[in-house]
Amino acid sequence: MGRRAVIDMESWVCPVPLRDSPNVVMGHGGGGAMSQQLIEHLFLPSFGAAADANMGDSAVLDLGGLRLAFSTDSFVVRPPEFPGGSIGDLAVNGTVNDLAMVGARPTALSTAFIIEEGTPLVEVARAAEAMGAAALAAGVRLVTGDTKVVDAGSGDGIYINTAGVGVVAPAVDIGPRRAQVGDAVLVSGDIGVHGVAVMSCREGLEFATSVRSDTAPLTDLVAAMIRSGADIHTLRDPTRGGLAASLNEIAAAADVGVALQESLIPIPAGVRDACGVLGLDPMYVANEGKLVAFVAGGDAEAVLEVMRAHPLGAGAAIIGTCVPDHRGMVVARTALGGTRVVDMPAGEQLPRIC
Amino acid sequence: MGRRAVIDMESWVCPVPLRDSPNVVMGHGGGGAMSQQLIEHLFLPSFGAAADANMGDSAVLDLGGLRLAFSTDSFVVRPPEFPGGSIGDLAVNGTVNDLAMVGARPTALSTAFIIEEGTPLVEVARAAEAMGAAALAAGVRLVTGDTKVVDAGSGDGIYINTAGVGVVAPAVDIGPRRAQVGDAVLVSGDIGVHGVAVMSCREGLEFATSVRSDTAPLTDLVAAMIRSGADIHTLRDPTRGGLAASLNEIAAAADVGVALQESLIPIPAGVRDACGVLGLDPMYVANEGKLVAFVAGGDAEAVLEVMRAHPLGAGAAIIGTCVPDHRGMVVARTALGGTRVVDMPAGEQLPRIC
Repeated sequence: MGRRAVIDMESWVCPVPLRDSPNVVMGHGGGGAMSQQLIEHLFLPSFGAAADANMGDSAVLDLGGLRLAFSTDSFVVRPPEFPGGSIGDLAVNGTVNDLAMVGARPTALSTAFIIEEGTPLVEVARAAEAMGAAALAAGVRLVTGDTKVVDAGSGDGIYINTAGVGVVAPAVDIGPRRAQVGDAVLVSGDIGVHGVAVMSCREGLEFATSVRSDTAPLTDLVAAMIRSGADIHTLRDPTRGGLAASLNEIAAAADVGVALQESLIPIPAGVRDACGVLGLDPMYVANEGKLVAFVAGGDAEAVLEVMRAHPLGAGAAIIGTCVPDHRGMVVARTALGGTRVVDMPAGEQLPRIC
Repeated sequence: MGRRAVIDMESWVCPVPLRDSPNVVMGHGGGGAMSQQLIEHLFLPSFGAAADANMGDSAVLDLGGLRLAFSTDSFVVRPPEFPGGSIGDLAVNGTVNDLAMVGARPTALSTAFIIEEGTPLVEVARAAEAMGAAALAAGVRLVTGDTKVVDAGSGDGIYINTAGVGVVAPAVDIGPRRAQVGDAVLVSGDIGVHGVAVMSCREGLEFATSVRSDTAPLTDLVAAMIRSGADIHTLRDPTRGGLAASLNEIAAAADVGVALQESLIPIPAGVRDACGVLGLDPMYVANEGKLVAFVAGGDAEAVLEVMRAHPLGAGAAIIGTCVPDHRGMVVARTALGGTRVVDMPAGEQLPRIC
């Protein structure tokens, strides 16, 4: 009470229109530039000395020689069930994948529900069943939990938070800063699938499509890639903000240029069509069972082969390279031979996709 | 979609009126019998084989010899700032204390915000600042995080989830099942303080009181108790459901009777007065900076001395013993010489207290 906030809005920069709007907007949760600004200019200064300077999707802690990966995500997707999955699947796979992206073998998850009063118990049970099945599939245990109930009108059915822990093997060193010039950029399969699947059944936006969410645990695929002995520098699951946000984050973190060949990016017809109708760019649409990998150029073909041999990497492709030009930026060569800058998204094309 | 839930409502038993009401009610988040029923009859069967049978406040995992404590809690308290603390303080201290109650030294927390669109950024910053200060005080780092934004009307300002990890020393073995006949039951100070502080400033219920929340990290107090060499069997922070819920849970888990001397339970005048006005029993009111300890009878006086020497245990008292009678139940001897059963609360006296 009466605590004074240190937030200095004058220091906030474009593209966040914060000097004019002092309130939270949907884009702050979009995983793009506005989310980054919120972390950089609000959370980190407010948390102060207690915060790790590079609070990322997963932390890797050194606990007496054991390298522990630790990650959290909340899930507020609407509708809670969609073609190919549900909020329960996302809640498990999302955190499992964040752990896998630092090369960890996920071990255990926590499960925290915030439920709106009046929500049918069977809806809670369905979400929990999906979590149980997804956890079994991903090889993680659900070990601790919490339930809060908020009064009707103060929530929206079910929100689920999971946190996860996992162990990083001693020889593994995977992170956004390790990407370097000469790396090949690979993606594990079709992009834009999850986002289109959720949009396709959203109230007020329903349209026919055969696209089903790709929600899946990437643990085994990553383990196979690591076992191959390839020099894997960086992994990322391109969720909110899509492939564009992930590539921009990595380009900025490693200070490299990312040069893409647009024609090599696997975009299924269903996603292309839906994006055409909705006026969206597939590069910015969320994925929930894909990864992007930055791998030493000489190892790229070998890794590609390993990925393609795995069910979750069957559609893998090399889509570009790391270059010394346009550092911090992602540039795509189009089918027509021109180039375009693939910007960091500001907010989110469609919110509450996970 | 079309997934069938296994939930079998016919098997649910009193005191949960679930056969008549198939929806979530506030009491399911109260930390009492309804919360237990939700875990036992909905979450555990739905999670299935992926769940640990005794999903408690904190799990203790064995990771290659390292004993890792892992816990989570969401915080939805209203109002978000109250005398003596805020949602940010609770979010840190609540998870820190869950870890401390299994004897762990907390190491790191995750921070996940679900924010309603339109919430002033300064409110987010104030909550984050409180978290930073509380984390510094508790000696934990904030290492990873997530932010989701939900549309206006689908939330209530700010909800915060934290998960935490900590290390349990090899010799430490503290848990609810270890309580045994002959143990002394101790409490670290005045009870009912947090709940009354939050109620006192709740809209529609404002009343004058000098009671301030006791929110605090119990890590150091627990460390001092462990260092004393006393045989500590069980620790619990009596939050939702108050002292009554914690004692009943322990009595049931360890299959012992808990016999209290009501006159020995420290209840400050402000709490007693407020509870009198509101018709509440202080035994059921939430605490956020207190612990109850079950300690081998012969060590009780020594532990009491150690607790009283610590600022957060200055008001500690021995309030009862574990007996072979009325196993699974808590019975209090009243000031008038009679006895009363201190039941497990069903739901919650006042919701959204943390």
